[in-house]
Amino acid sequence: MTETDKGGRKALRPQLLSGFRDFLPQQMLLRQQVLGRLREVFERHGYEPLDTPALEYAATLTGKYGEDEKLLYRFQDHGGREVGLRYDLTVPLARVAALHANDLVLPFKRYHIAPVWRGDRPQRGRFREFYQCDVDTVGSPSMLADAEAIATVAEALQLLGFPEFTIQINHRRIVSGLARLAGVPEEGAGTIYRAVDKIEKIGPAGVRDELIARGIGADVADRVLDLVQLRGGTAEMLAELRERAANLPEVLGGIEDLERLFGLLAALGVPREHYALQLSMVRGLDYYTGPIFEVAVERPKVGSVAAGGRYDGLIGSFSGRDVPATGFSLGLERILEVIKEFDLLPAPRSVAQVLVAVVRERDADGAAAPDEGTAAALALVTELREAGLRAEVYLNERRGLRDQFTYANRKGVPLVAILGEDERARGVVKLKDMATGEEREAPRAALARVIEQFLEELYGAEATTKRLQQ
Amino acid sequence: MTETDKGGRKALRPQLLSGFRDFLPQQMLLRQQVLGRLREVFERHGYEPLDTPALEYAATLTGKYGEDEKLLYRFQDHGGREVGLRYDLTVPLARVAALHANDLVLPFKRYHIAPVWRGDRPQRGRFREFYQCDVDTVGSPSMLADAEAIATVAEALQLLGFPEFTIQINHRRIVSGLARLAGVPEEGAGTIYRAVDKIEKIGPAGVRDELIARGIGADVADRVLDLVQLRGGTAEMLAELRERAANLPEVLGGIEDLERLFGLLAALGVPREHYALQLSMVRGLDYYTGPIFEVAVERPKVGSVAAGGRYDGLIGSFSGRDVPATGFSLGLERILEVIKEFDLLPAPRSVAQVLVAVVRERDADGAAAPDEGTAAALALVTELREAGLRAEVYLNERRGLRDQFTYANRKGVPLVAILGEDERARGVVKLKDMATGEEREAPRAALARVIEQFLEELYGAEATTKRLQQ
Repeated sequence: MTETDKGGRKALRPQLLSGFRDFLPQQMLLRQQVLGRLREVFERHGYEPLDTPALEYAATLTGKYGEDEKLLYRFQDHGGREVGLRYDLTVPLARVAALHANDLVLPFKRYHIAPVWRGDRPQRGRFREFYQCDVDTVGSPSMLADAEAIATVAEALQLLGFPEFTIQINHRRIVSGLARLAGVPEEGAGTIYRAVDKIEKIGPAGVRDELIARGIGADVADRVLDLVQLRGGTAEMLAELRERAANLPEVLGGIEDLERLFGLLAALGVPREHYALQLSMVRGLDYYTGPIFEVAVERPKVGSVAAGGRYDGLIGSFSGRDVPATGFSLGLERILEVIKEFDLLPAPRSVAQVLVAVVRERDADGAAAPDEGTAAALALVTELREAGLRAEVYLNERRGLRDQFTYANRKGVPLVAILGEDERARGVVKLKDMATGEEREAPRAALARVIEQFLEELYGAEATTKRLQQ
Repeated sequence: MTETDKGGRKALRPQLLSGFRDFLPQQMLLRQQVLGRLREVFERHGYEPLDTPALEYAATLTGKYGEDEKLLYRFQDHGGREVGLRYDLTVPLARVAALHANDLVLPFKRYHIAPVWRGDRPQRGRFREFYQCDVDTVGSPSMLADAEAIATVAEALQLLGFPEFTIQINHRRIVSGLARLAGVPEEGAGTIYRAVDKIEKIGPAGVRDELIARGIGADVADRVLDLVQLRGGTAEMLAELRERAANLPEVLGGIEDLERLFGLLAALGVPREHYALQLSMVRGLDYYTGPIFEVAVERPKVGSVAAGGRYDGLIGSFSGRDVPATGFSLGLERILEVIKEFDLLPAPRSVAQVLVAVVRERDADGAAAPDEGTAAALALVTELREAGLRAEVYLNERRGLRDQFTYANRKGVPLVAILGEDERARGVVKLKDMATGEEREAPRAALARVIEQFLEELYGAEATTKRLQQ
């Protein structure tokens, strides 16, 4: 260690804000791998990248998130403007669609991978800064756009190796019809949604108790529970619902949407076990108007890893013209919890594939020109990089080989290349396999190829001269 | 267009904050390509990825940036804490190095690519939110770490195709010795630095005038100018400086550092035309303590595209222990200006490589199950994606082929695949080349391969089933 303890010096205590995180390299390597795969799937489905500012006018963000609006990070900027940190990626998209209406070709399919900020109470799995990964289509009223979003998320979770998941599908008009079907007046509807939303957590009996506790009659509660627990094939459930909602045209429109959507999902070949009609699923955000989606993962019990739906009115709140839109948002943090739990994507421990040791000649200390040993190490590391390898050279020429091996071991660099006086004289390089401690020699001219072969045996063909997938 | 003008409806005017930008897909495709190449070079040199929060305690950020501290975005969060948006990536690294001292193996080489925020007056090429791309080494006092940072930046700019650039190198101790060598008292030193820093802009005569206008004697001004304009080979310049600074040990230490650094750069094989000793180069930030670097690009005249240096005291301000550190910061926005000016990286216009048209059967309108034409298009797009192509399907089945061609043209999708009733009957797919309008048929089973060949001819082998480089 090169640090000197200065004892009495007063230092600022280094602190992270609660709910915020540093991502050290090993975490970053995994995050980049996951984000790389998501981007790959999004682009394969023709979604195009978009980015927007972290800060928006506060007026852009307010009135969109219901009660949770209090979680917005708001403040006044240098010019006295009321501003806020991005709370999700959907409202910025709506603002973009309205602001750049003349530059965008509709339907506009975009993906957006970026952090959002919410002043939530930090708790297990909840952060104040976290990444969302969104795919949305602006400008298509067709259920095709909804089906595409669902197919994309299904493929993404499959590619990440999720062992089991179900995309639950419902419709905003069916949700809002629930109260009317149950005969509950408009103003009591919110109570019903909030209670029904908990059915997975507290069970039907718990929902019934809560409804009754909140002043809903037992017969109404039973009717609501009866509806949201319709079972059977999707077609039968929708047919049953159609019968019960015969006089509610709004609900009938929702049923038609879902029938069409399920037909398109089948035509797109989305595996049938990965999506299901779930009449008890309610999405809290105010702006949804059509189909709504949610992916809850049971093992490990991380809750919702993705959610979305159609929001045909949101863009109009900026542009004054109705522009239909629909999409899906994946939560990176919960996806990572699942990936870690099942060890779905083992990430390499280090970026560098090989460390070139510096074998220095003692007498050269203090001279301006590097000694021959250092110069040889630098020439070698440059050569390996030119061959496409990720190579580092040990950055302190005053340390001996033992310190350099310790460094490679602690970092997880699999190989150390050693080019001492003897090796230089014989035109070879010594390679030390850090996992086994074995050493072998390779002719200098063939070194890059020997290292590639070694890495191929260690990690498979992917991990050699190509970049880490990200 | 599916929008309906609702006339009287009151909508919020969609607005971007001044100094902030949306990046629409075409801009994003170029940005991602540049960032991908930077990451590639950084990782090839063994720098590992790190990320830190956008928000830090204000106390972490203050006292680091001199006069510019007023540009910090500061506010109180929900818990009444004084917080600020990240102003650069160096101070967060110092905070990380102190906070995670027990988890980091030193020397710690990290790269960090992320936005930073400054409440600057927006002007051409200046933004309030912009990306920095940093490489730094923590924990090595050796000039090797400085040489590695310089070699990395040189390789990055070469890989991006920069036609000409010079990494200017100076040393903080030489800069602070300038005033003493010129016989100016401590308190006048700032005046000298600020004037000398303008030498590229206003010329030596301009600097002389400014120094005199600020109360520096003409003889002193001449001595300063004489020093910073030393010409010749690096070795001669440093030898001359060594002679003049014979009684200033601080300056002599700086000269030794630079002699060593230039020797290491040669050993690393950094092309000699890409770096130079520049005694008039001054870096404003308070925290530099050793060598300092800057890359100014002359064509187009965008100013500094990268800058950095050694800051051995900054981490200690958090940890109370001296930990040496050095690195380089590249500014993405100015790099992009150069890339656009010289068209160095033509980005593809669209993510999708092929649009599958929906040829719908008229009579199927309103039915729940998709008609045969839509179903066939969906099956085809899924097939192409499974073959690794980036394929989209037109997301509005009520539009005719002409609208779909217009869409492909405006988006820049190079191919449209058409699978009408006739093609289905014959087991073929029609492919329309949108650049020439030419149509040809391919057997359905061979379609993915035919498209790959077409794209290879159009863009070269890189652009086919592999992901866009990013």
